[in-house]
Amino acid sequence: MDKAQQDALKKAAGIEAAKLVTDGMIAGLGTGSTVRFLVDELGRRVKEEGLQFTGVTTSRRTQEQAESYGIKIVDIDDVDHIDVTIDGADEVDKNFNGIKGGGAALLWEKIVATNSNQIVWIVDESKVVDTIGKFPLPVEVIPFGAGHVIKKFEAKGYKPVLRLDAEGKPVRTDENNYVVDLHLERIDHPQDLAEDLITTVGVVEHGLFLNMVDKVIVGDPNGPRVMTNGNK
Amino acid sequence: MDKAQQDALKKAAGIEAAKLVTDGMIAGLGTGSTVRFLVDELGRRVKEEGLQFTGVTTSRRTQEQAESYGIKIVDIDDVDHIDVTIDGADEVDKNFNGIKGGGAALLWEKIVATNSNQIVWIVDESKVVDTIGKFPLPVEVIPFGAGHVIKKFEAKGYKPVLRLDAEGKPVRTDENNYVVDLHLERIDHPQDLAEDLITTVGVVEHGLFLNMVDKVIVGDPNGPRVMTNGNK
Repeated sequence: MDKAQQDALKKAAGIEAAKLVTDGMIAGLGTGSTVRFLVDELGRRVKEEGLQFTGVTTSRRTQEQAESYGIKIVDIDDVDHIDVTIDGADEVDKNFNGIKGGGAALLWEKIVATNSNQIVWIVDESKVVDTIGKFPLPVEVIPFGAGHVIKKFEAKGYKPVLRLDAEGKPVRTDENNYVVDLHLERIDHPQDLAEDLITTVGVVEHGLFLNMVDKVIVGDPNGPRVMTNGNK
Repeated sequence: MDKAQQDALKKAAGIEAAKLVTDGMIAGLGTGSTVRFLVDELGRRVKEEGLQFTGVTTSRRTQEQAESYGIKIVDIDDVDHIDVTIDGADEVDKNFNGIKGGGAALLWEKIVATNSNQIVWIVDESKVVDTIGKFPLPVEVIPFGAGHVIKKFEAKGYKPVLRLDAEGKPVRTDENNYVVDLHLERIDHPQDLAEDLITTVGVVEHGLFLNMVDKVIVGDPNGPRVMTNGNK
């Protein structure tokens, strides 16, 4: 599939998911290339259909895009709940375990998701996998002592790589932390891995989102397909 | 005991602990009122006795104090290990479980401790308790969504209070995060609490240091007393 075809599937999933946002709702807006299409569609509906909703964003990038459409964005601590959060994902398996954080926004994404009544992911079909882990797992790490965290991950065989920007400097998250990507190839025991990572001193958060999502909307050449999580 | 007497005990513990630092060592230097006396004594030895060692500090405050004495301070990622870290504690029980973070430096303190071959705490006798928890347990929390974390803590009966500065604004840690103090009065199951806190999305680190310390030097009117942890 070429990029134009993939973008068409992402866009179709984004437009389908936008239907979940209705007047008066508080909606969490994720981050990433698929979410851009979602926000474009929500912006169109605000302008053309007079849709009124309040957004909570998971990154400064999404906030800027949403506000450019006149969507009202508030701080997460200014709302007592979020009705639905729509976000992308880098991988998701049949058990609704996923990896997020390719865009380095996993921390705010997880905080918003944790406070949402419903979580929906929009992906193109290339993101639906049998076993997660081929996509490098992002881990947000405090810069102070990050070298020691990386050494511990190396000793455990996690194949960590500090994420660098185009200039060769460490990427900084919205919270000014580093991102370390674990090149695991496959993750057979995601719960055990999640516990090991989160209890490592210096780790702020990781990109494993395990059985958190309610619904996955998959961009498919035959039209968006919905996977519903019955076990949450 | 008045403050002058307490300071005398803290100073005695600090001077005793300074003996653990010898030529060529890499020493972790904690944060707090007792550690100030330790750093004073190390500074004296550098000047008067020619002591040569390298320090790794757990806060900008300690770094400034140490450098004012000409102590060589390096970044934690510039050393491959730390020989001994000497720090204070807000409470410690007979099982060598402790609470730290009264000075808001718990994150860097825990990162330095985790990378140390030996951990020593210096306290005055008022810090040695039967059951930890009377001292409010500090939790470092990401500002984004902190209000929701506090609500969750309230629902669990943790009695959280956002720490404010003299101007009524939230205290910021060296990593620019908030500190939420849990007024638990007593902590009967510290391991369970530690796990619950660290797996709460939005929590960066907490002030429970469970069975991490090797030796506690207690300032006592009869002279410094040493508690050695045989179960680590």
